[in-house]
Amino acid sequence: MTADPATPLLDTVATPDDLRRLKPADLRQLADELRTETISAVGQTGGHLGSGLGVVELTVAIHYVFNTPEDRLIWDVGHQAYPHKILTGRRDRIRTLRQGGGLSGFTKRSESEYDPFGAAHSSTSISAALGFAIANKLNDAPGRGIAVIGDGAMSAGMAYEAMNNARDAGNRLVVILNDNDMSIAPPVGGLSSYLARLVSSGQFLGLRELARKFARKLPRPLHNAARKTDEFARGMAMGGTLFEELGFYYVGPIDGHDLDALVPVLENVRDAAEGPCLIHVVTKKGKGYAPAEESADKYHGVQKFDVITGEQVKSAGGPPSYTNVFAKALTAEAQSDRRICAITAAMPSGTGLDKFQQAFPDRTFDVGIAEQHAVTFAAGLAAQGMRPFCAIYSTFLQRAFDQVVHDVAIQNLPVRFAIDRAGLVGADGATHAGSFDVTYLATLPNMVVMAAADEAELVHMVHTAAQYDAGPIAFRYPRGNGVGVPLPAKPHLLEIGKGRIVREGTKVALLSLGTRLGEALKAADALDAKGLSTTVADLRFAKPLDSELIRKLMLSHEVIVTVEEAAVGGLGAHVLTLASDQGLTDGGLKIRTMRLPDVFQDHDKPEKQYDEAGLNAPQIVDTVLKALRHNSSGVSEARA
Amino acid sequence: MTADPATPLLDTVATPDDLRRLKPADLRQLADELRTETISAVGQTGGHLGSGLGVVELTVAIHYVFNTPEDRLIWDVGHQAYPHKILTGRRDRIRTLRQGGGLSGFTKRSESEYDPFGAAHSSTSISAALGFAIANKLNDAPGRGIAVIGDGAMSAGMAYEAMNNARDAGNRLVVILNDNDMSIAPPVGGLSSYLARLVSSGQFLGLRELARKFARKLPRPLHNAARKTDEFARGMAMGGTLFEELGFYYVGPIDGHDLDALVPVLENVRDAAEGPCLIHVVTKKGKGYAPAEESADKYHGVQKFDVITGEQVKSAGGPPSYTNVFAKALTAEAQSDRRICAITAAMPSGTGLDKFQQAFPDRTFDVGIAEQHAVTFAAGLAAQGMRPFCAIYSTFLQRAFDQVVHDVAIQNLPVRFAIDRAGLVGADGATHAGSFDVTYLATLPNMVVMAAADEAELVHMVHTAAQYDAGPIAFRYPRGNGVGVPLPAKPHLLEIGKGRIVREGTKVALLSLGTRLGEALKAADALDAKGLSTTVADLRFAKPLDSELIRKLMLSHEVIVTVEEAAVGGLGAHVLTLASDQGLTDGGLKIRTMRLPDVFQDHDKPEKQYDEAGLNAPQIVDTVLKALRHNSSGVSEARA
Repeated sequence: MTADPATPLLDTVATPDDLRRLKPADLRQLADELRTETISAVGQTGGHLGSGLGVVELTVAIHYVFNTPEDRLIWDVGHQAYPHKILTGRRDRIRTLRQGGGLSGFTKRSESEYDPFGAAHSSTSISAALGFAIANKLNDAPGRGIAVIGDGAMSAGMAYEAMNNARDAGNRLVVILNDNDMSIAPPVGGLSSYLARLVSSGQFLGLRELARKFARKLPRPLHNAARKTDEFARGMAMGGTLFEELGFYYVGPIDGHDLDALVPVLENVRDAAEGPCLIHVVTKKGKGYAPAEESADKYHGVQKFDVITGEQVKSAGGPPSYTNVFAKALTAEAQSDRRICAITAAMPSGTGLDKFQQAFPDRTFDVGIAEQHAVTFAAGLAAQGMRPFCAIYSTFLQRAFDQVVHDVAIQNLPVRFAIDRAGLVGADGATHAGSFDVTYLATLPNMVVMAAADEAELVHMVHTAAQYDAGPIAFRYPRGNGVGVPLPAKPHLLEIGKGRIVREGTKVALLSLGTRLGEALKAADALDAKGLSTTVADLRFAKPLDSELIRKLMLSHEVIVTVEEAAVGGLGAHVLTLASDQGLTDGGLKIRTMRLPDVFQDHDKPEKQYDEAGLNAPQIVDTVLKALRHNSSGVSEARA
Repeated sequence: MTADPATPLLDTVATPDDLRRLKPADLRQLADELRTETISAVGQTGGHLGSGLGVVELTVAIHYVFNTPEDRLIWDVGHQAYPHKILTGRRDRIRTLRQGGGLSGFTKRSESEYDPFGAAHSSTSISAALGFAIANKLNDAPGRGIAVIGDGAMSAGMAYEAMNNARDAGNRLVVILNDNDMSIAPPVGGLSSYLARLVSSGQFLGLRELARKFARKLPRPLHNAARKTDEFARGMAMGGTLFEELGFYYVGPIDGHDLDALVPVLENVRDAAEGPCLIHVVTKKGKGYAPAEESADKYHGVQKFDVITGEQVKSAGGPPSYTNVFAKALTAEAQSDRRICAITAAMPSGTGLDKFQQAFPDRTFDVGIAEQHAVTFAAGLAAQGMRPFCAIYSTFLQRAFDQVVHDVAIQNLPVRFAIDRAGLVGADGATHAGSFDVTYLATLPNMVVMAAADEAELVHMVHTAAQYDAGPIAFRYPRGNGVGVPLPAKPHLLEIGKGRIVREGTKVALLSLGTRLGEALKAADALDAKGLSTTVADLRFAKPLDSELIRKLMLSHEVIVTVEEAAVGGLGAHVLTLASDQGLTDGGLKIRTMRLPDVFQDHDKPEKQYDEAGLNAPQIVDTVLKALRHNSSGVSEARA
């Protein structure tokens, strides 16, 4: 590792107020130092690098021109906000990014008044900025809403919904479209082509043009507001009809690394705009750091790395990731089944579908950040006889919940949901945790919900899902690497709604769903050592439950404990409901459910998160022992 | 009521195949008869009328020109599909619309092969049509995907997401934009203004222009596909850049009641299009029926009516609807609190916010069919100190689930969710039932979830939500009228997480959430009459639960039964989880949970739906008696 870089000018800037005291001529140096500091910090912590490097100048220019934090600046997704954090009073903690107890890798309200609205999921910024702008308008208070949103995020429906409502905000709304022609994956869709045409057909607004366009600043107030608006629009617009048709003034395209262009344009928008503005800024992801600029994904998310060489710390190897196991298994299935196709919402590498795509380009669909469309599109494919797999992270599938209900479950269409990043996710924190899918899917009629206990099980589940045409089916698996079990040469067809006994005992039964199975087995060993003979079952299915197996275990054991990496309302709730429906709890059976706690857990190392969640072996043991000690007769007496 | 109308030509058309044997000159008469038949049928059943009348000619033209059902025709929302149902083999059942066991008021796969994709929620049609089109493309099979979508539905993000992906489908995708400038409420937003400009600036493509444009049909195949595409585009486009920028060929605007225009345009699109087409058709909602054309909402949804006079059967009067009680209560709160504002997603009258809007136009926001934006916009308002109420039907709030999680709950922002149409909804059926909100909201940390037992409780809950600034809070209430209790002169502030004892007993405790309270009280009377002293509690809160009250009741009663109008994973699951967490089930307490069944219930009269769901008083009594009879010692013995 190299020493922290020299940053003499940046050292004088603790907050945007300090920044706004600088001369325009100093901004270039400040941006350079800010870039250096960002690279140095991420080199030590890992995290999102390319996106932040692309908006260094934009970050400086926005805080220089606008009156943050009164003007509410909202970074869409928020993973590009490291330079923003450095400039807004968090430089002293910037080397704690994504570490337990440290700064979040996204914007977060609790961190700073300069983060008025947290993010992490894409495409929320315009809606939120509108909320701020309208609230201020209602209260005759100063303050704009400023959204900075990438071209990739613009493919999401909610960005469009917000744009469609922008006119209410008048000039209190500023949208800065950060067009780097690459979110995480290469761009897709009509909008993306459209933006590319805007950029390639026009030329950047340069110094000379800016001087000409803005030479005569419009006097305020004008007697004829309508005329002023027209002139502003005529002066600024170089195209961009799509945005103009939705009610914006379009300004651009502008070179987003040219402070001499950015600052005057933003000043003019600040001072002269009569309605909502969309400023089209073109940036380069990874800008100013050669290893990032040259890498295929522009260092979107990186491990710790050496600043000089750009070499990233390699992860330890070990078993394959669940993501890779899924992708290989699906590819294998698709070799013999032309009906199988795969859909991703802008996450081809995150879901492993980039590998599937290499084998089956025609049957792979990256629909952009558009989970709603992804699911209903899949439903249409299924209705026409295909076997579609929607590979979407648990947390992002929330975006398509209504489509899962209305288009898939009600119609009982065989859409396969491959739910990656189910459960806790470590450094990405609460916004990316896949906590709720078991609950929100298992409540739906017709839905089959599986969870893989290990990577071999995942292979069986991919096969089972492929073969299941009776209705929708979902299988969840966690972030990270498998547990190291051998992968099956030939996948098994799992019987729907049937679990398996992994370990037989007589007194305690642990009912596990998903990858906490390993901890359940460890706990069983510990309990056995205490003379408490323990059964462990891998239920495999949260829906339909294996009621026969569960009933048998309840009738033959004293204590039943369910274990899952999911929030309340999931497996435990369904097992309790089954037990009470059948009167199995009437006789004094001790049932406990272990699940994710009822809080949004902050980012941390996964093992710490599991400990905090109380889902490790010692806590399972503890739950069993407490249940056994619990004086049920006392309860009975109190009742009598 | 009048006799069924004479429809000599329509009588010869049982299916689209029959239709396609007619001469073009006969289509006008067929359309007129189809309109008459539609009016006659809806006069007898009630239902959606205006939308269907607006698309009579379009329905005839599409089936005449395209090869349905091989060409997959998808009506967005589906409430305009009554004429389509008449033409596709369902005329004999058309007077059973929305009745129990009768035809659905929407499209439905199980009804007909001519309904390839069911609907009821808005804006799904383009995604589904793309699915059909792409599946056929992959399989080299014939068949297009044809989506008919209203201008209002175009404001939803998922329609935009689908348009952004349209190019993949080539000429297998046809989108017909049915622009009636009015979905249910007056249109809002930038897109709507844009469409209005297209219509007002151009003129309809008339017969002469059509003749000119299509005189020289392009020979197929052409050697130069690109050139052909260009010519087609030049020939067809009269504007519509927004759609063209997204990759469509735009055709229009066209008078949607002029069959002489519609048929040739559709034929040309069918025969000559080289890419996805968007055909902009202008129609008049309620067309051809004077009472509908003259009514403010164009007879969007009607009761049974007299065809001659247009007079609708009045509903019976009785207590005010929950919707009205909510609207009045919110308006009263807002009189003394300038921070209160209200948001609807295109349902101002359905949610009662039209009344709020009369009092507070500046604080009412109709964002169009854009639930995602609605919720995050509200989050932004809340973050800037406002007290926003999002009034959204339970089933439509599913569209914004991720925004509820990511933008509201994680940030713990005080957005108020007024959840109308919670529970079963009668004639609108499964797609509109509000079954899942308790489950999908109560699983979220920070969320407060209330349910009103009657209209007076609703008033208290509106007040409580208004005053609650600690985080998000939701209150649910059903479709239809209140139970007739007096409304409070002054609302109470409810203590968060506290229920109330409505009736005291000793042996059985019924824990009710929401409006099943009345049935629980009836059941308690019946149980008391059998010598089973029964307590009834109105828990008010599904989250946080009143753990003190529940614990007390569990320790002092033999049987506990929860009753709710919500799916598995809701109140019952949370009560069971609480009981098992605290070891309250260890001593042999009998707990049962009564909830909505694990099926999507078809449309029917509400009382029949409740009976089917098993949530009426006799079934509550039965559950208690069965629990008491259940031989728990047998279970204990089997276990021992």
